[in-house]
Amino acid sequence: MSITNSESIEKQIEKVSQEISLLIERNESIKIIDDDPDLKKEYETNQKLLEQKKKTLNELCTIVSQPLNLIENRPHLESLIKRRLFYTNSFEIYGGVSGLIDYGPSGCLLKYELEKLWRHHFVFYDEMLEIKGTCITPYSVLKTSGHVDRFTDLMIKDVVTKDCYRADKYISEWLKNKLDEIKGQKNDGNEKREKSFDKCENANTNDTQTIQEIESVLRKLDGMNETEIKNIINKYNIKSPEKNDLSDPFPFNLMFQTKIGPKENNENDMIENEEKKVNSKKASNDMTKSNVAFLRPETAQGIFVNFKKLLEYNGGKMPFAGAQIGLGFRNEISPRNGLLRVREFEMGEIEYFFNPEKSNHEKYDLYKHLLLPLYPRENQLKDDGKVITNMTLEEAVKKGIICNEALAYFLARTYLFLLKCGIKKDGIRYRQHLDKEMAHYANDCWDAEILTSYGYIECVGHADRSAYDLKHHMNSTGANMYGCQKYDKPIDMEFVKIVPNKAKIGMKFKSDQNKIYKILNEKTNEDLLNIEQELNKNQTYILKDSSNDSDGNNNTFELTRDMISFQKYNKKVQETNFIPNVIEPSFGIGRIIFCILEHSFRIRQFTDDKEERHYLSLPYVISPIKCSVLSISNNKEFYPYIKQIQTILNENNISCKLDNSSVSIGKKYARTDEIGIPFAVTIDFQTLKDKTVTLRDRDSMLQIRVNISEVSSIISSLLSHKSSWSDHVQKYGLFVQQNLEN
Amino acid sequence: MSITNSESIEKQIEKVSQEISLLIERNESIKIIDDDPDLKKEYETNQKLLEQKKKTLNELCTIVSQPLNLIENRPHLESLIKRRLFYTNSFEIYGGVSGLIDYGPSGCLLKYELEKLWRHHFVFYDEMLEIKGTCITPYSVLKTSGHVDRFTDLMIKDVVTKDCYRADKYISEWLKNKLDEIKGQKNDGNEKREKSFDKCENANTNDTQTIQEIESVLRKLDGMNETEIKNIINKYNIKSPEKNDLSDPFPFNLMFQTKIGPKENNENDMIENEEKKVNSKKASNDMTKSNVAFLRPETAQGIFVNFKKLLEYNGGKMPFAGAQIGLGFRNEISPRNGLLRVREFEMGEIEYFFNPEKSNHEKYDLYKHLLLPLYPRENQLKDDGKVITNMTLEEAVKKGIICNEALAYFLARTYLFLLKCGIKKDGIRYRQHLDKEMAHYANDCWDAEILTSYGYIECVGHADRSAYDLKHHMNSTGANMYGCQKYDKPIDMEFVKIVPNKAKIGMKFKSDQNKIYKILNEKTNEDLLNIEQELNKNQTYILKDSSNDSDGNNNTFELTRDMISFQKYNKKVQETNFIPNVIEPSFGIGRIIFCILEHSFRIRQFTDDKEERHYLSLPYVISPIKCSVLSISNNKEFYPYIKQIQTILNENNISCKLDNSSVSIGKKYARTDEIGIPFAVTIDFQTLKDKTVTLRDRDSMLQIRVNISEVSSIISSLLSHKSSWSDHVQKYGLFVQQNLEN
Repeated sequence: MSITNSESIEKQIEKVSQEISLLIERNESIKIIDDDPDLKKEYETNQKLLEQKKKTLNELCTIVSQPLNLIENRPHLESLIKRRLFYTNSFEIYGGVSGLIDYGPSGCLLKYELEKLWRHHFVFYDEMLEIKGTCITPYSVLKTSGHVDRFTDLMIKDVVTKDCYRADKYISEWLKNKLDEIKGQKNDGNEKREKSFDKCENANTNDTQTIQEIESVLRKLDGMNETEIKNIINKYNIKSPEKNDLSDPFPFNLMFQTKIGPKENNENDMIENEEKKVNSKKASNDMTKSNVAFLRPETAQGIFVNFKKLLEYNGGKMPFAGAQIGLGFRNEISPRNGLLRVREFEMGEIEYFFNPEKSNHEKYDLYKHLLLPLYPRENQLKDDGKVITNMTLEEAVKKGIICNEALAYFLARTYLFLLKCGIKKDGIRYRQHLDKEMAHYANDCWDAEILTSYGYIECVGHADRSAYDLKHHMNSTGANMYGCQKYDKPIDMEFVKIVPNKAKIGMKFKSDQNKIYKILNEKTNEDLLNIEQELNKNQTYILKDSSNDSDGNNNTFELTRDMISFQKYNKKVQETNFIPNVIEPSFGIGRIIFCILEHSFRIRQFTDDKEERHYLSLPYVISPIKCSVLSISNNKEFYPYIKQIQTILNENNISCKLDNSSVSIGKKYARTDEIGIPFAVTIDFQTLKDKTVTLRDRDSMLQIRVNISEVSSIISSLLSHKSSWSDHVQKYGLFVQQNLEN
Repeated sequence: MSITNSESIEKQIEKVSQEISLLIERNESIKIIDDDPDLKKEYETNQKLLEQKKKTLNELCTIVSQPLNLIENRPHLESLIKRRLFYTNSFEIYGGVSGLIDYGPSGCLLKYELEKLWRHHFVFYDEMLEIKGTCITPYSVLKTSGHVDRFTDLMIKDVVTKDCYRADKYISEWLKNKLDEIKGQKNDGNEKREKSFDKCENANTNDTQTIQEIESVLRKLDGMNETEIKNIINKYNIKSPEKNDLSDPFPFNLMFQTKIGPKENNENDMIENEEKKVNSKKASNDMTKSNVAFLRPETAQGIFVNFKKLLEYNGGKMPFAGAQIGLGFRNEISPRNGLLRVREFEMGEIEYFFNPEKSNHEKYDLYKHLLLPLYPRENQLKDDGKVITNMTLEEAVKKGIICNEALAYFLARTYLFLLKCGIKKDGIRYRQHLDKEMAHYANDCWDAEILTSYGYIECVGHADRSAYDLKHHMNSTGANMYGCQKYDKPIDMEFVKIVPNKAKIGMKFKSDQNKIYKILNEKTNEDLLNIEQELNKNQTYILKDSSNDSDGNNNTFELTRDMISFQKYNKKVQETNFIPNVIEPSFGIGRIIFCILEHSFRIRQFTDDKEERHYLSLPYVISPIKCSVLSISNNKEFYPYIKQIQTILNENNISCKLDNSSVSIGKKYARTDEIGIPFAVTIDFQTLKDKTVTLRDRDSMLQIRVNISEVSSIISSLLSHKSSWSDHVQKYGLFVQQNLEN
């Protein structure tokens, strides 16, 4: 296959990738049936084709596409979004609420199509188990998951007005202004110096030092704790916008809190009291007594608490993935920028559960050849660190840049999903989180970031949550969260036996001795052997109780050589149990919609210098509506034909929108282009005579003339990419009436 | 068309109704083009056909279908729901939260298909403007809508344990027990009397009186106010389940409350303080200061506050409908019965905005012939009042049973929707609300109630909200909520002019005089003429200020004959402005899902007396998955064929589920039947030889043998009802291998 210009590079990458997957899959299945000479021949032909296609894909991935004028286009796009009601501020007649956004008719349909695509691309393709959990989530669940304690931003407060600010954002802005000020002064100083050059020298050295200091603070600000921030506020004497003093920084939990049911709490029966209760007994008993709840900050917990049921539904088979599309809520301190940072948002989350000993993925081979724009931790820290554009996933996994195949698989699937959505390949990068920026549950995280007029924005997170959540829920509730790996034949496995001197342990630790056995029983073989080694070396080992690591009161126990030893032994087993690890791709639907709009926005200049026209070149699959049905005027005689075409399209599941108004046909085309409808059928006076209509393509504005009876099959074939627009232009010839576009 | 037994009555009703609609529509459009003899002939043929079809429909509607064994089936269905994870209690490992339900994989897909159908049947069919608003709703919006003050249930509290109960439900249960007790005693008494019949006479008369009293209380309980309920508690000395005293009844607001953003309120800065703020100034200014918010109790308000934008989007054209699918939240005091009364639920709402002077509906004619099971207010109050089953909508509107055509149209559309979902016709009734049970915003309300094992359950409300919401939002915010009706030619209209004696009014009312002019200006012509009449009769008229009728402090002004008069005059106008009225069909998605499961549950008894099999006979359109791909054993050689069929089905947008496990084929069929998958393709050893497979129909369990290449076109044609299963059985013949079902 050669690279053609008629289709976008993204579309071609997607197509070739799919062809490669199909070829690999076909050959995998041919290998099973090994006695058929025809199949053997097919296998060899396929292998050759495969090599060719991989080469093509490589070429496609390295083509640099035209830059998008995102920043220049932003005001035009904003106007289109408003005019065509893609989305709008919620409750605007009441003054609006920052961080709340409503989708209007066009946005709602776009979102609907996007979620449908997500479901097909991820859920159906991998036979994931989709669930729909509730937004209201009881206290104990989010206490266990760590969100009650750690899902916070540091906040500072104007001590007079009580207005609150996010500490890092406010200080960063304040310091940047300070920096500009100093630099300005310095430049002024330089200008002055030319006149009296013996004075400013000293001040200037001071300034340079201050600038360097501030720049260093700005780099570190993101990871600073309360004390560090407090020191910065004091050092630079930072004030509120009203010039008042600022409070010490304090953590603000980003979850919306509410109460379930009518039972009343005491006045102050909020988080603090609840914590005491939960810590004093098992959460499960406490559930009915507590009525504090939160709106979920992520949909993930709904999948984790249902893990056992999903595993059962799956017939006990591991690995498998749960999925959920639904709302998340974050009580952001400073929401901003339309859809980019909101307080209530749709998210799509996948939790892929797997045996930590087997971090591969069944379909990894189908995608490992892809070239992904990776931006690893190391490159971000280097001064000249760049995005890697010429490395296959396979290489990245082998070099340890991506930690395992399962994670790599999902990075690849997300990449193809984003291309399908119309995101431009050169506007995507995969940025690995720095150590200190990761969420409390994550081991590793790669964000698919998309380039927007506001810079690169995190749209899809791919977190390795290890067994963090399942383990904690198991500890809190006692529910069994084990997965099981069965073997066809028994296999030999190494175990470590704990050999305690019970008398000595009992004497020293008394009532705590059972706690010690419990902790040891939960350790892995590797951990136990490490303890043995340490005991041999130092004669002593400090054992920590981390079973309830969220309360901070860890007990420690000093074990000595004479109290305990550990012995390796082998045993044949039929199965092993494990708490599954989790890879979590998490999609911000609203953010992706924003990026799609920015990446698909186009400006058309007409040659005869009339006003420029703006439109959305959305991929067919996510266009809000697939076809417009227009009439050249609002003559009543067109009405039966409009209805007829509408009926035909409906019957063939092609969504359509009528415009039978009295505005000019040019204006009608402009309207349908603005909401990204790919095709338009137009009824004119010729239709009354011979039952033909024009069919127009949004992107090229070219038209063909076809019989009414042909309309639906042509559009169906175009929408499913079984044919291209140029095929039909070739077959039917271009239709040129008058220049109706203007 | 004759009535056949191969399809359900519901399916046939739907089909004939659609045919009638198409014929009416076709003839409407033929009428426009009046000079074509061929069309004239077609018109006449169509009219004849139409009469026939209406007759058929009448016959279909009056057939009484077989009763459903809902109550007997319930335990079996509950087991199936659990086993196949349609839905489950949320957070069960934490002990669960009553009133919160998660959908598992089967339920999630069913819900997805149901919402898709809803969107097609309502939103796309009527080109409604769908929006997606936020769940978090600021205080001021719900204060205006009346929910802060009136969306309450009366509650009583055990004064010792502080446990709360819904007053009406608790007292009703308590009195019913009391009743049983008395009746029991009475029977005991009767038995005893046979032995000593001269004693109990007196006691017995007392009992009879008490019984009658209690029965009367039970009938009135639903509409009782706080004092009445208090009296009942005292009179019957009602105690809590722990025998403690009960508190006086008090209203409990059913909305979940939360706070937006970080700004802290004072300790007690809850509803009470907010109310003061809102009442003291315009809500719009207050918005940024207040941070109290609620989770929306209905999605409707999100549409109302966006009314003006939607009208603009619609090019100013009235009437139109907004629609929304999304979550609603109600902090129920006593949630129960799985999906039937939950605290977080999906709803689909439509708000049809129209000129109050033109309460017809463009498509009413297409549906007015339908026979709907109406249960009007009057019939409910009569002792022998029944559901009316033989009245067309047209008759019901003409007789004033249904107040207007727009409402009737939506009742009809909902009826056809429910039939499409698989709800049995004889399990639906339209119950009109009694006056006192209506929501605070409603003028009239018809509930589509569906028969379940718990009795008839409200699933779809059809409320006439008049202009209640738009008016109140306009008053609160000053936003313009007017719609406009333009006329082709100017029309003559009657107006009423207000002729005040300004001096006299000024003298009497001083600073209030502007208020009086404002109130009068907001009155309709009819209102003003009534005032004129009253002034003529009584020389005086009491004018009420109802502009802020939610605070209860209405001012009144006494006008006298000498202060004011009103004069009729005529004027030619091009357009009229009006605050639109609203008809609101509101669907409880979860409840409908429950009803669908109950109505589609079936039991199959095998002749050779093996265990009975349970399955769901879901309509194709909402089946979670459309086709199973099975193999007769888990032989590896079947794998390529399984993949091939999966690929073919995917390409043709037919969702499928593989089962390649080692269980028997009979068990595999049982599994696919349980989640209501209509078709199954099975690969066996014959497939390896000639590339044929069996295709099995869920309901009849019959099989045909077809080539792999034919599978997708056959299933597509069945799913779209272009052909029926019996057509294919006739064409391909029955395939009988061995009896694999068992």
